[in-house]
Amino acid sequence: MSFTIREGKKEDMPEVLNLIKELAHFEKEPEAVVVTASDLQEDGFGASPLFKTYVAEMDNKIVGMALFYPRYSTWKGPTIHLEDLIVTQSKRSLNIGKELYKKVIAYGFSKGVRRIEWVVLDWNAPAIEFYKKTGAVVLQDWNTAQMDESAIKKYVETF
Amino acid sequence: MSFTIREGKKEDMPEVLNLIKELAHFEKEPEAVVVTASDLQEDGFGASPLFKTYVAEMDNKIVGMALFYPRYSTWKGPTIHLEDLIVTQSKRSLNIGKELYKKVIAYGFSKGVRRIEWVVLDWNAPAIEFYKKTGAVVLQDWNTAQMDESAIKKYVETF
Repeated sequence: MSFTIREGKKEDMPEVLNLIKELAHFEKEPEAVVVTASDLQEDGFGASPLFKTYVAEMDNKIVGMALFYPRYSTWKGPTIHLEDLIVTQSKRSLNIGKELYKKVIAYGFSKGVRRIEWVVLDWNAPAIEFYKKTGAVVLQDWNTAQMDESAIKKYVETF
Repeated sequence: MSFTIREGKKEDMPEVLNLIKELAHFEKEPEAVVVTASDLQEDGFGASPLFKTYVAEMDNKIVGMALFYPRYSTWKGPTIHLEDLIVTQSKRSLNIGKELYKKVIAYGFSKGVRRIEWVVLDWNAPAIEFYKKTGAVVLQDWNTAQMDESAIKKYVETF
């Protein structure tokens, strides 16, 4: 039951996409994933990479991943945003998620950022408890606003 | 009462910082702003800029600003995050905020992103109503988790 954690490589992206889709399926939104493996390869490994990943490997298979990228706080300066942390269903409770999480926090520490941020569903009590135990605060008074592609187009057409 | 909106320049950053501080003061957290004008100048106008801004100008003074940057969705691909949209107290209700907002949405549209995202305080009903009217959805089930600099250090020391 041993695993290793390393930086994600371009050729890992098809397996990383499988994890993304597994989670979307679990959340009953499989059709919401429009990103392809080659999108991930271009977006993450081009001249200006839009994200970095760590992957957890077990028997030459990728069983978990963390995807993160820089953000910017007008109060704190450069920050890191942890977008996704996924462990495949059959490999939970082996601490893989925790080790990926630690790797991202260590990365942020090495970059000297003043904040690492992510979001968590408000009903996910075990995750919230874990985050708090590691020293994170969980803010409940901010809502996330999103305009999707069709809403953007529709709104711009009114200008 | 006429204003113009244009892209923010390096030399605008001291005035942009004043707006950031004005808002932090209003939110009763003036000491939370550790970013300096030269940080903003380096971070926003170096070889790999971490953000872009639009500013609203009136009588050669900057009275409003929007600060945004790219993010990445594992479902949608490249997105835009609107970090801050500030209009100085004395110049509210002139639609300056709305014009800055439209400019950011138009920028996202021109880049072909599939999502533009931001956060809003859950008690800010007028803002939430405005966002919804423009086609945004406001999600209430996500909490924001943050680990600050000292928590990062403390946690990493336990590894």
